[in-house]
Amino acid sequence: MPSLFGGITKPSWAPISLKCQYNPLKTTINNPMASPKWTQKTVTLPPQRRGCHLVTSKIMKEIGQEISGFKCGLAHLFLQHTSASLTINENYDSDVRDDTETFLSRVVPEGSSAPWKHTLEGPDDMPAHIKSSMFGCTLTIPITDGKLNMGTWQGIWLCEHRDSATPRRIVITLNGM
Amino acid sequence: MPSLFGGITKPSWAPISLKCQYNPLKTTINNPMASPKWTQKTVTLPPQRRGCHLVTSKIMKEIGQEISGFKCGLAHLFLQHTSASLTINENYDSDVRDDTETFLSRVVPEGSSAPWKHTLEGPDDMPAHIKSSMFGCTLTIPITDGKLNMGTWQGIWLCEHRDSATPRRIVITLNGM
Amino acid sequence: MPSLFGGITKPSWAPISLKCQYNPLKTTINNPMASPKWTQKTVTLPPQRRGCHLVTSKIMKEIGQEISGFKCGLAHLFLQHTSASLTINENYDSDVRDDTETFLSRVVPEGSSAPWKHTLEGPDDMPAHIKSSMFGCTLTIPITDGKLNMGTWQGIWLCEHRDSATPRRIVITLNGM
Repeated sequence: MPSLFGGITKPSWAPISLKCQYNPLKTTINNPMASPKWTQKTVTLPPQRRGCHLVTSKIMKEIGQEISGFKCGLAHLFLQHTSASLTINENYDSDVRDDTETFLSRVVPEGSSAPWKHTLEGPDDMPAHIKSSMFGCTLTIPITDGKLNMGTWQGIWLCEHRDSATPRRIVITLNGM
Repeated sequence: MPSLFGGITKPSWAPISLKCQYNPLKTTINNPMASPKWTQKTVTLPPQRRGCHLVTSKIMKEIGQEISGFKCGLAHLFLQHTSASLTINENYDSDVRDDTETFLSRVVPEGSSAPWKHTLEGPDDMPAHIKSSMFGCTLTIPITDGKLNMGTWQGIWLCEHRDSATPRRIVITLNGM
Repeated sequence: MPSLFGGITKPSWAPISLKCQYNPLKTTINNPMASPKWTQKTVTLPPQRRGCHLVTSKIMKEIGQEISGFKCGLAHLFLQHTSASLTINENYDSDVRDDTETFLSRVVPEGSSAPWKHTLEGPDDMPAHIKSSMFGCTLTIPITDGKLNMGTWQGIWLCEHRDSATPRRIVITLNGM
């Protein structure tokens, strides 16, 4: 990972060097007195324009308190739509999100040259369905010591594939101990 | 979401408008008397032609009774093959499934113009492997109040990427309380 | 599945024919005396060249012993990076991995003809981010009777999308009984 990123030196807390190939962090919870916890919540994100959006902070605002109660577990996010997607990608430079939208718009034909039969919901609808399956509508992220255990540069993206923005519902399920 | 879909007005139970951006539904189960349940079952779907197939009802026929016993949990589906895929997409218009197959056949080269080294299992085999990784072989879906908590228009698709149909095995794991 | 694969007859333990469409294997664990187990470990894989790499044995070396303690459960793998990916695909012929890299390099433009704004980390960086979302950074695999319950021909791939190799961290979470 080069040290320059958009002309800005990356923050010093980036894991540029790793001291060992095996990280000794290991948590085993097998306590007969402990009981598993399940929490489930439906969060609705406000309408956003077509493109890729970093929504980590919006998600954490909704579930951060619940996550803090888990020593070890998994957070599952499920987008209840077929024309948007959830993915994990770069959390720093918005150009990465713009370029990803550029890629999606190029790789899936849209408009008069597109071969789609399903066109009655608009020229952007069938491409949106395809993009939804390309990136997927579901994510599972580890929870460690009360926090989402993502990499330094990772963030949660909601990718809106329709031209007309609508609210998007995400069912979030937390499981752990 | 336009009200016209293939010339038919979408059913009135579609979530066309959402009253609030935050859905208050929240379930927390942390009962020391409750014990977690795990159920695992291998389901084999019959051979289907190349293309995308809606298999929600076939899956539910196999696991619906077990799912009904979970108040809150997750259903995990794992396709044990490398030339087919599982994805979640539109459950209403079969044109969406046909168009998705059209996209996959266009984006992954096949036949004499394709650059593949791996050709001994037929011209459709290497493209099938690529499509399997594009859409993936695994899905996790929330369970809420004894049902799969998918969106109104979502369904489970099995995408068969080989020309010659074979049975496809799915390991289904249910976990919850 | 043809019997010839690279000129070699596939081993006789391949599930070429399936005797029934419904496999009766079913495990239900709902024992109040049993307690759920959670194990979480961060594994760092050594640097590997750009391309797709079969890492099943490396992963199993790190978590095989822990997995053997689970009768039924799920193994979750989470790659903490945005320019590499995890996927499940063919475990036998390395040509499949080479061809997949060929596909990825073709489908995502790179170099002077590419339309990317995000270029300061090198011409391979933005394509790497896109490929990471195409294949994904997370996998969930069923555990049955102490083993990963993958299909005969399935293996875990780490796909390195950068030209310069770096170590890659994977958070592995095991949950089951």
